[in-house]
Amino acid sequence: MSNIKVIALSGGVGGAKLLRGLYNVLPPDTLAAIVNTGDDFEHLGLHISPDVDTALYTLAGLAHPEQGWGRRDETWNFMHALEAIGGETWFRLGDADFAMHVERTRRLKSGEPPSSIIAHFAKSFGIRALIIPMSDDPVATRVLTDEGELAFQDYFVRRRSEPVLHALRFIGAERARLTESARAAFASPDLEAIIIAPSNPWLSVDPLLAIPELRHALETAKCPRIAVTPIIAGKAVKGPTAKIMVELGIPVSPLAVAEHYRGLIDGFVLDERDAALADCFDIKVHIANTLMTTLDDYERVARITLAFVHANNS
Amino acid sequence: MSNIKVIALSGGVGGAKLLRGLYNVLPPDTLAAIVNTGDDFEHLGLHISPDVDTALYTLAGLAHPEQGWGRRDETWNFMHALEAIGGETWFRLGDADFAMHVERTRRLKSGEPPSSIIAHFAKSFGIRALIIPMSDDPVATRVLTDEGELAFQDYFVRRRSEPVLHALRFIGAERARLTESARAAFASPDLEAIIIAPSNPWLSVDPLLAIPELRHALETAKCPRIAVTPIIAGKAVKGPTAKIMVELGIPVSPLAVAEHYRGLIDGFVLDERDAALADCFDIKVHIANTLMTTLDDYERVARITLAFVHANNS
Repeated sequence: MSNIKVIALSGGVGGAKLLRGLYNVLPPDTLAAIVNTGDDFEHLGLHISPDVDTALYTLAGLAHPEQGWGRRDETWNFMHALEAIGGETWFRLGDADFAMHVERTRRLKSGEPPSSIIAHFAKSFGIRALIIPMSDDPVATRVLTDEGELAFQDYFVRRRSEPVLHALRFIGAERARLTESARAAFASPDLEAIIIAPSNPWLSVDPLLAIPELRHALETAKCPRIAVTPIIAGKAVKGPTAKIMVELGIPVSPLAVAEHYRGLIDGFVLDERDAALADCFDIKVHIANTLMTTLDDYERVARITLAFVHANNS
Repeated sequence: MSNIKVIALSGGVGGAKLLRGLYNVLPPDTLAAIVNTGDDFEHLGLHISPDVDTALYTLAGLAHPEQGWGRRDETWNFMHALEAIGGETWFRLGDADFAMHVERTRRLKSGEPPSSIIAHFAKSFGIRALIIPMSDDPVATRVLTDEGELAFQDYFVRRRSEPVLHALRFIGAERARLTESARAAFASPDLEAIIIAPSNPWLSVDPLLAIPELRHALETAKCPRIAVTPIIAGKAVKGPTAKIMVELGIPVSPLAVAEHYRGLIDGFVLDERDAALADCFDIKVHIANTLMTTLDDYERVARITLAFVHANNS
């Protein structure tokens, strides 16, 4: 029986900040984070799962405080030595970070599913929340650009999101299933809220929503479903969200994000800098300072979001 | 056309010291080291080639000055992070060292033969000597012990050479072929000597000699073939050579080493501490201080060995 109170759907760094806030303010073992794996890729013969590791590092307190990926107190001797022998260095892998990819790859090859590996990592780090991949089945985000179709990391890291984006594909999503742990979380009798974290809706959240079973679970959920805005005053806090909204012909506005999630959310946490837009929403809106810079901010936005949930529920 | 003057057959650290000495005293591009790959193994999903990397690091000046494996100025963050998530840590892999295994594995998977990968590494390190694997075909050293048959690294590293050794097998050696670069070295019109470095004759040199084409090349060589003693005053300088000679019922004596190489060598460099044995040899013997501690020692023993070659040749 699952004791999960809150499910959060998350991508990379923006989402991970809210995950950390929720984790800190909720009782232990009551948060389930379902995390994007569409960015996963093979590199240097290893299986790399960037958003899952960002979630793990952030909840374990191991994340780098500024750069938005990788670990704090990291060293780069592997990368320097690889460069000296002409290896591929466009994707930066720290010495400690590397251990995750090696151990994940070894376990995958031995037949262990991703969800079990991630649960093992979370336990090793002492994390008392469920970190669940969106599926144990492979889903690959592909980006259709003016330079042709690119694998996600080729677009995002190697090309620094520079090519103009026309559309996205999530290969394998149609056939991907939820994990048992995700199903149990959605069926939890204690479930109070499903929160869509302020990750990039198109790059990071859409891969989750492309999985029919996950979309259906969201559509039919009996608890409030809340999105936290990834757009503040016409800009994304970090990453290419605003840029790709422009390229997709979508106004860079939290309204467009709420429209994108239509039918999947009951409420929207809007940033105070966009308060003037509140009346344009046809779902409940809560206005707050949503900018997350410090750990205090993460917890404050988590508390605001949960209070909004309970106000909606009563 | 090969300009090789000296071929040295080598295993790990003891042999690598003489390789470095020879490299320093010979003209550039005239030394070919043929190195044991029977110790190669798969670990953490990577192909690891310990003796080849010891040769590369030693000739590049990157080797750790004391420990006999790995790199100087190494860091261990990968290993610490791997330990924290419950990974296998019995084989110590430094952060910079790891780059070799990752890049080697990636290239092997793309179909590149080991000899080409090693040549690439040597070039990256600016090494002007040929470092040649004993074969591009896989050969696996297996150790028959009182605890059963063990893979080499299980015996040597994990079990610290503690099990009593009864015999050795070199799986694949019968069918293994020399590389083209080794064939060219043996056919070099400039070839002046073949030197068996002071590596462990049973664990490190026998894998080479188990390859019929390599044994034949040694048997039929027209230049002097010299072994440098791996035994000084009844002891090995480093490693389990003396221990396994006892276990195999062989006297721990340089005479037994010369006997082991019977038909394959014309001369033997004997340590001065064993000078009393000189008259018992039925091949030419040169008595010298063969202990190699400093770089000066490496070069001194190399010069002594080459002088002995030329004395034999004239």
